[in-house]
Amino acid sequence: MDTSSTLSHTETWCLLALVGASINILVNTVQGDGAPLVASIALGGISFATAFSLIRWLGPVFLKAGLKGKDMAKPRRPEMYEPETMGAVCAVVYLLALIVFIPFAFYKDIVAATSGGGNRDVVLEPQQAENGRYLHRFPHGKLASYLSGLLSLQSIIILGIGDDLLDIRWRHKVLIPAFGSIPMLIVYFVDFGVTHVVVPLPLQPYLGDSVDLGWLYYTYMAAVAIFCPNSINMLAGINGIEVAQSLVIAALLLFNDALYLAPITPYPHPATDSHLFSIYFLLPFVGVSAALLYHNWYPSKVFVGDTYCYLAGMVFAVVGILGHFSKTLLLLFAPQIFNFLYSIPQLFKLIPCPRHRLPRFNAATGLLEASVTEWTVPPSQFIATALHLLHYLHLVHITKNKDGQIFESTNLTILNLWLVWMGPMKENRLAWHMVAVQTVCGALGLFVRHRLALLVFHHDNRAFGIS
Amino acid sequence: MDTSSTLSHTETWCLLALVGASINILVNTVQGDGAPLVASIALGGISFATAFSLIRWLGPVFLKAGLKGKDMAKPRRPEMYEPETMGAVCAVVYLLALIVFIPFAFYKDIVAATSGGGNRDVVLEPQQAENGRYLHRFPHGKLASYLSGLLSLQSIIILGIGDDLLDIRWRHKVLIPAFGSIPMLIVYFVDFGVTHVVVPLPLQPYLGDSVDLGWLYYTYMAAVAIFCPNSINMLAGINGIEVAQSLVIAALLLFNDALYLAPITPYPHPATDSHLFSIYFLLPFVGVSAALLYHNWYPSKVFVGDTYCYLAGMVFAVVGILGHFSKTLLLLFAPQIFNFLYSIPQLFKLIPCPRHRLPRFNAATGLLEASVTEWTVPPSQFIATALHLLHYLHLVHITKNKDGQIFESTNLTILNLWLVWMGPMKENRLAWHMVAVQTVCGALGLFVRHRLALLVFHHDNRAFGIS
Repeated sequence: MDTSSTLSHTETWCLLALVGASINILVNTVQGDGAPLVASIALGGISFATAFSLIRWLGPVFLKAGLKGKDMAKPRRPEMYEPETMGAVCAVVYLLALIVFIPFAFYKDIVAATSGGGNRDVVLEPQQAENGRYLHRFPHGKLASYLSGLLSLQSIIILGIGDDLLDIRWRHKVLIPAFGSIPMLIVYFVDFGVTHVVVPLPLQPYLGDSVDLGWLYYTYMAAVAIFCPNSINMLAGINGIEVAQSLVIAALLLFNDALYLAPITPYPHPATDSHLFSIYFLLPFVGVSAALLYHNWYPSKVFVGDTYCYLAGMVFAVVGILGHFSKTLLLLFAPQIFNFLYSIPQLFKLIPCPRHRLPRFNAATGLLEASVTEWTVPPSQFIATALHLLHYLHLVHITKNKDGQIFESTNLTILNLWLVWMGPMKENRLAWHMVAVQTVCGALGLFVRHRLALLVFHHDNRAFGIS
Repeated sequence: MDTSSTLSHTETWCLLALVGASINILVNTVQGDGAPLVASIALGGISFATAFSLIRWLGPVFLKAGLKGKDMAKPRRPEMYEPETMGAVCAVVYLLALIVFIPFAFYKDIVAATSGGGNRDVVLEPQQAENGRYLHRFPHGKLASYLSGLLSLQSIIILGIGDDLLDIRWRHKVLIPAFGSIPMLIVYFVDFGVTHVVVPLPLQPYLGDSVDLGWLYYTYMAAVAIFCPNSINMLAGINGIEVAQSLVIAALLLFNDALYLAPITPYPHPATDSHLFSIYFLLPFVGVSAALLYHNWYPSKVFVGDTYCYLAGMVFAVVGILGHFSKTLLLLFAPQIFNFLYSIPQLFKLIPCPRHRLPRFNAATGLLEASVTEWTVPPSQFIATALHLLHYLHLVHITKNKDGQIFESTNLTILNLWLVWMGPMKENRLAWHMVAVQTVCGALGLFVRHRLALLVFHHDNRAFGIS
């Protein structure tokens, strides 16, 4: 019997215990005041257990359906295939969790907006409501915003699965998240339409306190929604790296969200709801990602597929945009932004770009080395000078032939650059290093955002009332 | 050059003209008062052109990705594969059309709820609004309802694609629409929660005017959402039949919706909005389905896949449930309901059920004949008696061996039954007959609903104010 597609006894019992505890918590929240945060944590647990089991069980089904890939950084040469596109499984579990969460998110409002339970058609008019115990009508705006986030995630998953199946060309692929972001932007337009941004202090004499960016703001949001998924898809190529970086970003966002919650920030704060919204989207994502990472970490047993990268990036874009903290979000993407900028010479073919740029596996040492691109035609004078300069700055490694002409230079990705700096290392060690880089950069970013931002803005929105 | 995957010159020009005209109409609606009905028609045109071109262009891509099937009712025996799962292409185009439509659907409300355009953050309070020219705030409830319909459609498409790829088992498959209906039901619960139904006159002395079904009503809605997609998936097997029946149902629903619009029913009518909602969901669906039918009609060049059947059924379930006319909807499903009930003996294995029950192609005559299931073990006394009775009633055709034992009986589908009644016929003729059956049954259903319903209800909701 093939044990790679079944759960061990220990795993079965642990997962069952987790699911049991989570369901217990969920049921309790409904009997109490429907604490959505607690319910969200419980749904995160259920999502983890469900994704974990499905990834294990569906392996052979995916292989049979031809959804398989080969690990390019492993010694064994014979045709060993592993299930690919497992991110789609996580995506489906994640979506169902978010859908099931809807009544929990709005439990308090359902109770408040109706005559107490069950009899939901007796919705009081606002006037009446203000006199009685019913404090507000149902917050349809918040519901629409939640649903639009969900719609964007579903759109990108459909397109991501299409990409994984049909192998869409690179230049078409880049725009997939643009389609995915349409629902969210349209609902943002219909529903909020806030396109003002606060102006940094040094510019206030010229521009006033805030400036209306109008349609430019939509362009900016679309750009964020296109950048996040693609940049995660670009920082890929070794076991576990896509999921690990996403988990670090999610953890940092959760930490940032927690700063706006009750004990730290007193409750009636305008940004609390946005950050709760962000937590609700992130917790089940952390659940399914952790389950995927268990199977995808070195040595990986399944691959994640573009679907996962798109999903992860879009989750961040959704919480950043609908939670109104897209600038903070971009601070957490520092390694991805660096990786993108660093890749530009290859993306625009100033430097030859091979089909795969992932680090090269050296079967003799068992270590990963920086992969190189070959110059069949020597570079132009300008490019050669630039490469020499970058080599001198340790930002690239070039190899010259005996005529002094460059015939090899390392591929421009952060993974290769790290190997240039640190020397060859094992695949899992490189993944750990990247996790550390992501964590340090992100933590630094959050520090900058909450402490140093005071230098250019009047106040941090956590302490005062501007979101 | 493979002409089967390119558009001819005539096609290109016709489609370009259609798209041009549609875009022109769309732009005009924005400059005028944003007539959403006109915009929806224009989007239907664009959807048709887009789906038509993509189905043509993506054929080779799908074949290469292994998404292919074989036509079982055609003479040529050599391995001729045709692209399968083309319904997924329609689904994506349809979803994008519905997403792009959001601002058009709510254009009037956007203008009314804001200070006139652009300056969307100055939303007036209701009190102010009633004095000025701003008559109402933004109808978030309607938006949430639209978005939840969209979410259900996306969910079922994701699961449908999964089904087409992974070949999920029949007994798991049936429940796929149940997951797809969750978003809609949850938002229905959160947002309306109306679970009263009007009681027919003869029962009113016992039950009162209306009765609250409570959670039973949700069970009923879930059942509708499970039934519609599966029943369309079940009435399948010959070229074009899935799409043709869906188009007939959509056309009849549109006809029914039109009865509630301005010239026929005076405007401020409580059911108008529900039926407009239904039209907005149906028009782009008709667009993509017509494009698919062109390629899927006999002799078909592409196959639709389960994705299309699920999508079609879910579109009907969404408009029926969120538009509050699910009983009318079921009247239009008469052939599907008959097909389902008629199939039950095979579904529950009282009669042997082969993997495929589609009509058998007779290569000698070029005609389709009723396919049969073989009794390797003779039927029990009870089943045999029932089969003899059905044979006598012309509801099944049995063949007996010289001992008088049944060894073959026709498969219990409406297509086979029709062939038993009418004798063998060509595939396209059978498809036309089914279109006629669907149209006649549906038209009769609508007549019953609007005329004869007066016998058991006080009034038809079209004439009076109860929706």
